[in-house]
Amino acid sequence: MSLATPVLEGNRLSLARLLTQIENDSDEGRAALGELFSHTGQAHLIGVTGAPGTGKSSLVNQLARYFRNPDARQEPRRVAIVAVDPSSPFTGGAILGDRVRMRDLAGDPGVFIRSMASRGTLGGLATATSGMVQALDAAGYDLILIETVGAGQAEVDIARLAHTTLVVEAPGMGDEIQAIKAGILEIADILVVNKADRPGVENTERALRGMLQLAHPVAHRTWHHGRAEMVNAGSEEGGLDEIWQTPILRTVATEGMGIPAVGEAIIQHRQHLHGTGDWQRREHARLEAELNDLLQAELVSRWRQSVAEDLYHRTLNRLVERRISPRQAVAELIDEGKP
Amino acid sequence: MSLATPVLEGNRLSLARLLTQIENDSDEGRAALGELFSHTGQAHLIGVTGAPGTGKSSLVNQLARYFRNPDARQEPRRVAIVAVDPSSPFTGGAILGDRVRMRDLAGDPGVFIRSMASRGTLGGLATATSGMVQALDAAGYDLILIETVGAGQAEVDIARLAHTTLVVEAPGMGDEIQAIKAGILEIADILVVNKADRPGVENTERALRGMLQLAHPVAHRTWHHGRAEMVNAGSEEGGLDEIWQTPILRTVATEGMGIPAVGEAIIQHRQHLHGTGDWQRREHARLEAELNDLLQAELVSRWRQSVAEDLYHRTLNRLVERRISPRQAVAELIDEGKP
Repeated sequence: MSLATPVLEGNRLSLARLLTQIENDSDEGRAALGELFSHTGQAHLIGVTGAPGTGKSSLVNQLARYFRNPDARQEPRRVAIVAVDPSSPFTGGAILGDRVRMRDLAGDPGVFIRSMASRGTLGGLATATSGMVQALDAAGYDLILIETVGAGQAEVDIARLAHTTLVVEAPGMGDEIQAIKAGILEIADILVVNKADRPGVENTERALRGMLQLAHPVAHRTWHHGRAEMVNAGSEEGGLDEIWQTPILRTVATEGMGIPAVGEAIIQHRQHLHGTGDWQRREHARLEAELNDLLQAELVSRWRQSVAEDLYHRTLNRLVERRISPRQAVAELIDEGKP
Repeated sequence: MSLATPVLEGNRLSLARLLTQIENDSDEGRAALGELFSHTGQAHLIGVTGAPGTGKSSLVNQLARYFRNPDARQEPRRVAIVAVDPSSPFTGGAILGDRVRMRDLAGDPGVFIRSMASRGTLGGLATATSGMVQALDAAGYDLILIETVGAGQAEVDIARLAHTTLVVEAPGMGDEIQAIKAGILEIADILVVNKADRPGVENTERALRGMLQLAHPVAHRTWHHGRAEMVNAGSEEGGLDEIWQTPILRTVATEGMGIPAVGEAIIQHRQHLHGTGDWQRREHARLEAELNDLLQAELVSRWRQSVAEDLYHRTLNRLVERRISPRQAVAELIDEGKP
């Protein structure tokens, strides 16, 4: 029986089982996702990315706690965390982070935590993450925090998945190394300098501001924790500027410092997305990208089933022997391989 | 007329034009590559990757110079450099690096240099790089140095393309940030600590050695520049061990320090690959990966041409409205889209 119904009814054990089915890309998981899809589209998807050592996991924990107990103006939200570790198996970051979290947030029925280590290709990981997020969305979680370790393409894929992307930095990582992240900064909606009680925080902030100005040559301000009135500094009304100005916010996540300002920036970014129509545009782009990924995988899979295994290997051998070129091999395989 | 014949005859201008055709993925470029492919398979492909600020370009320049004028035991080789910058346009690294190089190596007919900035997807970049390398291989360059900025997936793609992969580090980038590169270290055949006259070189080396031991739990030694007899330290004979032990070599590329040891490690790695059969295995895996990339692109392209544009958009809209799931959309598009 499909897990879709109990998941919609709020059964946590069924949800956990469904997430495993999705991670394994099983037929049951695919079928249940198909049933659940019409119930998705409500959650605010928040990507959180950054290098190891920046304290991402603590920040994500604290944000989950903040959204469970926000200030008086906000309703408590149901929060899910998906921690994705695309790094190599021997770093083992995901498991440790999960255990630390369990102590913090376990027992709160409004919080659901799931971690996933990389097992296959990055592409497979992105598809599995997308499916898990859909299941959590359908299960009624209002905010879904998707945490990834900074590793290039993975962030870009996550950014494509999220409505709001946080990039987490920490002082003392050197100005040179920051440059590698220039591409990552382009996907940041909110920049967080965590471990802001460490020396060098001004340098880190200055480097980030410099790179933001290179990337988007508009004025940027640096916002400090506890000064929520400066969020969306360009506008008196707040939240509905046509151009989102990426804030740089300081936190000390282990002590909860600066967390409310980050939480409010996330809410303001959602308001900005809704106010400008960017929410719909991101949803459209996100679903089109997912459609195209699935189309590509399905076309290759169907073709693979249609082509004779020995034709494939004969052609590959002729390619390795340089008797045909790669493009000739493709043409021969697709044309001669037709059933 | 195809540029294949003049390229095979050693015409540099024709080669430069062909590389442009390949970069633009033009029909002429594709046709010429098809003619040239049977002449490929001779060059030693060497990937060089690392973060900005590690001095990769200087190292690559010095290696090119070394292989033009090696020690008495070696023949001079013809060397090509392909510098790929997959980072965002505003970093502009590739162009600057190229101009510095031109002063150094211009006028040597045994050297060919080409840089390429990212213009489209990473996938497109990998395909273009692969085609350029094939053209340079067919044109008779013995060693092709493929330089990329460290950015995650790009390195993995380059490693798949190269026979030998060098990962370049520099002191002073912090131990925490190093962890991000754990995945990259797994693809390294040779580790170079450049700028080794800077403080912190011992820490960098220690961190790298620690990560290598995590990745491959075998003994590793640290090799210093100018001590070529320690290359392939595990073996008295050198070069034909079943297991390649990734050396860690110190250089100061701007002063030419340590370059001969890196050059010799590259030559020894080639001997190792030939001696163990890994050369053939890497060639086979490399060509199969390229074949699969091209197959995938061609299958998607052909399908795109066969499906009606309005069917695609109607289906996408129903997906965005959550009336069908992504997998239902795929099934409908592929089945109903059949001509």
